[in-house]
Amino acid sequence: MKIAILPGDGIGPEIVAQAVKVLNALDEQFELETAPVGGAGYEAAGHPLPEATLALAKAADAVLFGAVGDWKYDTLDRPLRPEQAILGLRKNLGLFANLRPAILYPELAGASTLKPEVVSGLDILIIRELTGDIYFGQPRGVRECPDGPFKGQREGFDTMRYAEGEIRRIAHVAFQAAQKRGKRLTSVDKANVLETFQFWKDIVTDVHKEYPDVALDHMYVDNAAMQLVRAPKKFDVIVTGNMFGDILSDAAAMLTGSIGMLPSASLDANNKGLYEPSHGSAPDIAGKGIANPLATILSAAMMLRYSLGKAEQADRIEAAVKAVLAQGLRTPDIFEQGTTKVGTDQMGDAVVATLA
Amino acid sequence: MKIAILPGDGIGPEIVAQAVKVLNALDEQFELETAPVGGAGYEAAGHPLPEATLALAKAADAVLFGAVGDWKYDTLDRPLRPEQAILGLRKNLGLFANLRPAILYPELAGASTLKPEVVSGLDILIIRELTGDIYFGQPRGVRECPDGPFKGQREGFDTMRYAEGEIRRIAHVAFQAAQKRGKRLTSVDKANVLETFQFWKDIVTDVHKEYPDVALDHMYVDNAAMQLVRAPKKFDVIVTGNMFGDILSDAAAMLTGSIGMLPSASLDANNKGLYEPSHGSAPDIAGKGIANPLATILSAAMMLRYSLGKAEQADRIEAAVKAVLAQGLRTPDIFEQGTTKVGTDQMGDAVVATLA
Ligand SMILES: CC(C)[C@H](C(=O)O)[C@@H](O)C(=O)O
Ligand SMILES: CC(C)[C@H](C(=O)O)[C@@H](O)C(=O)O
Repeated sequence: MKIAILPGDGIGPEIVAQAVKVLNALDEQFELETAPVGGAGYEAAGHPLPEATLALAKAADAVLFGAVGDWKYDTLDRPLRPEQAILGLRKNLGLFANLRPAILYPELAGASTLKPEVVSGLDILIIRELTGDIYFGQPRGVRECPDGPFKGQREGFDTMRYAEGEIRRIAHVAFQAAQKRGKRLTSVDKANVLETFQFWKDIVTDVHKEYPDVALDHMYVDNAAMQLVRAPKKFDVIVTGNMFGDILSDAAAMLTGSIGMLPSASLDANNKGLYEPSHGSAPDIAGKGIANPLATILSAAMMLRYSLGKAEQADRIEAAVKAVLAQGLRTPDIFEQGTTKVGTDQMGDAVVATLA
Repeated sequence: MKIAILPGDGIGPEIVAQAVKVLNALDEQFELETAPVGGAGYEAAGHPLPEATLALAKAADAVLFGAVGDWKYDTLDRPLRPEQAILGLRKNLGLFANLRPAILYPELAGASTLKPEVVSGLDILIIRELTGDIYFGQPRGVRECPDGPFKGQREGFDTMRYAEGEIRRIAHVAFQAAQKRGKRLTSVDKANVLETFQFWKDIVTDVHKEYPDVALDHMYVDNAAMQLVRAPKKFDVIVTGNMFGDILSDAAAMLTGSIGMLPSASLDANNKGLYEPSHGSAPDIAGKGIANPLATILSAAMMLRYSLGKAEQADRIEAAVKAVLAQGLRTPDIFEQGTTKVGTDQMGDAVVATLA
């Protein structure tokens, strides 16, 4: 089985290197092939998603992705900026289902800015549609304003849209995920204002008929943002569109206080996927050897489970991560008095040692 | 001076009654005229925003609004649902600038789900554009999908848009508000994905030239949602579009744990405005006499300050609210051990008594 390794920018290479160590320490052997992406892709081939990188990602059985972005690319034209690579990969590989668990490890309860009783034991799964919505809708651009009080001025515009089949397939993913967990699904919309999301709500309600064992409720996105702060443990699985999911999944991740721990999976219709940590490229700490590699290592575990059919290997990695936390090892982002501060490499080595 | 009083649904009438008591207790006398809105408008005249109500709101110098919405109207067609009243008022009165302070009163620090050190002393101001964006953009609806893999299926769609003048006027409001506070403005966008918000960012950057004394920074909306959870006190003034503002202002309000305390103002180009509590109509507790009237009373204070030019009266009301909190009076939503639980009426009476 072939895995495309796309380290990217900032701390990407350092943290991906740890996940590669872990993969190499498993009994199974995988063919790993590395390619540049993001700013690194631009440096190497003049484009954030070089053709050869996209070809590799398409040919592979799964993609392990680090992170992209650096301030030094901020002045490039938008199509050349690092984050276009991730949008391009999602669209070209058809990765419509983004799974983002927000889990608070008991050992890290203190890291949250929320009170322990509000977040301890938090375990929610946010499922974000990833290839539709206003992210890709056409037409878009800057034009002359066609009507209203600002007629004739320049205006920026974008199109939000969701087709029936697009909503159905992400709803199926969400109901099936809920079946394997607490059997409760919250669909987040803005049906009181947006036609797109009244339609979304209607279709999700229809798909629900096929999953009578799952309890479905609907929540407006503004209320969902409030409830995530007020009582996040009340959620089990949340499903929403690309734009709302972008905002809510980051808010949910931050509730844990340890975004350096959170993996993510982006899947196509056949469970081929791209796996990446939920955090960004953190250029401010790149190269210092202090980044937390655990989100990337846990992303590799998700990859083994969802795309490569190796659930036992995934279990082993997840158990090893829990064990190193129990041993008291902490990178600086999750360090607390009474624990042992370690660097990126040491943390990767500790997971490998625990696996053995 | 004439004030339109629109109590609305749920707890709206009870809480607005307290604010009216407070207004009547001031030295200045105002002409108050009440009209039905929301579900109450639908019951009275078959429409959530009856013509007579809109005419009154237009004729008045300011509007004091309670809250709208009740489950019993959920099955009505969208144009007849209570929340259309608030959208209609905003659009018809040109209320483009929504000011939503998120303040944590020291006495209520315990009410937050966040750790005291993260939120104590919180005082941020969110300025949300209120008459543009995807809330009102045309075209919108359900149509046959014109292209792509879902061609021929039904799709829901909406249009996000911001014209140059629309962005300029809200940017001016935001820079001027920042000048009166900590002189720091964060403009929240999604310029890495949306044409509308790349344009927004460019225009805000241009308006900044007129306010060299204000420090401006730009933040992506997903990051803003995270930073509100991680370190909300780092913000001073936030300005953003209608959709992002809906989500972020509710999240920010919930950080305080006491959304029953938070007022809001929605202003037009001449400082005429609509004033309402940040919370909703809470039909589950309507009529029980336990709703917190302080957000509505504080909204009346904002009205005196921004629309009626009576800053001293506004100061008096705000001081009276602080005094009743210091006296230990609490409605159930903010009650804590060691304080005195009071009802809606008692709380209103206490503010009036303290004013005198
Ligand atoms: C980098 C950006 C385009 C991207 C998004 O908005 O989807 C990121 O925020 C994410 O969530 O993966
Ligand atoms: C009721 C709804 C249309 C409204 C909005 O989305 O603007 C509400 O959430 C608000 O923030 O005032």
